[in-house]
Amino acid sequence: MHAQNQSLLDALNACIAACEHCASACLQEDDVKMMARCISLDRDCADICALTARFVARGSEHAQHLLSECAEICKACGDECAKHTHMQHCQECAEACRRCEQACRAGLAA
Amino acid sequence: MHAQNQSLLDALNACIAACEHCASACLQEDDVKMMARCISLDRDCADICALTARFVARGSEHAQHLLSECAEICKACGDECAKHTHMQHCQECAEACRRCEQACRAGLAA
Amino acid sequence: MHAQNQSLLDALNACIAACEHCASACLQEDDVKMMARCISLDRDCADICALTARFVARGSEHAQHLLSECAEICKACGDECAKHTHMQHCQECAEACRRCEQACRAGLAA
Amino acid sequence: MHAQNQSLLDALNACIAACEHCASACLQEDDVKMMARCISLDRDCADICALTARFVARGSEHAQHLLSECAEICKACGDECAKHTHMQHCQECAEACRRCEQACRAGLAA
Repeated sequence: MHAQNQSLLDALNACIAACEHCASACLQEDDVKMMARCISLDRDCADICALTARFVARGSEHAQHLLSECAEICKACGDECAKHTHMQHCQECAEACRRCEQACRAGLAA
Repeated sequence: MHAQNQSLLDALNACIAACEHCASACLQEDDVKMMARCISLDRDCADICALTARFVARGSEHAQHLLSECAEICKACGDECAKHTHMQHCQECAEACRRCEQACRAGLAA
Repeated sequence: MHAQNQSLLDALNACIAACEHCASACLQEDDVKMMARCISLDRDCADICALTARFVARGSEHAQHLLSECAEICKACGDECAKHTHMQHCQECAEACRRCEQACRAGLAA
Repeated sequence: MHAQNQSLLDALNACIAACEHCASACLQEDDVKMMARCISLDRDCADICALTARFVARGSEHAQHLLSECAEICKACGDECAKHTHMQHCQECAEACRRCEQACRAGLAA
């Protein structure tokens, strides 16, 4: 595994874990309704990151296409999470999404 | 593909779709908080059904073990969904979970 | 679930099962080396179809983007499988891939 | 995320990447037929590790059951990979599987 791919996989895996944790934590909040869009995007983001990681690890010829879509969904999820400024799980997830988006874009440029 | 496996795959795929739809519909409800456990179980149930379907379709030697776990999670999800008697998406999901649980147990006995 | 979505999900699920079965059957062939690219594409195709089905079933705002990528990978996998004219599992998989590609493109146009 | 869970997620993610890489590398070998069982187990192992990681990250009540099954499949995959003593990708995968099996069993005992 090239060092760059490992760094990309690390960012993808950190984003999966952050999104899964964020969705579960959102469901425990008092005002779950306010978190509904966050939960929806967490689901999409964890799923696309998981698939992208698999394609990258296996050296798929289709990995590049997924990186582009993955970056888009990470951005959407990170933007939504960033709005919930007083929730630590959302702030951590927003940061993981931003790093993953950047790693995907770096992978695209490689 | 044997007819029995196709019937099992159909039940698993119907359960995945019902759980995904139910989770999204729950997030649109006025009282999302009441649906939090339902959404959590929908996630687990769709995920285990999806993996089980893959193992069954590929004829994996480990498919039997997953059928057992899949039946357990379908039961838990179906029981929770069944409680929400006035929500159609939950009732439909409860029915899909029950059928999938039965199909998994039939697959185990085969 | 709208009838059109159900038809799309059916095509996606049939393609997942065909790809999984094809990959396993390819691994049982005498000349596995000749099937190596087929097996690789089966993996990618089953994976992208599975994710696309989840996004469609949950009504994700990102489903459209995945449909486009899914159609591309279905085409690549179907073209490869179609080359192996004397293997039934490949011919069945090629047909499932073609139908799924068409269903994805129909979903994109909807 | 507790430190123990992070360590478990790291082992699961390393095992996914090793299995995906091993399967792709096996498909490039001259004697693919000899690697057929290894490729099959790599698929199962990467899939169960991926699902287990999702359940652990979301704090699912069903994570424990998956840890048990995941450990079993990691053992089967690691044992098969260990047989191919002159292939680096198999030796690396065998090591990742062994570490992941141990991490799953440690998670079960926790």
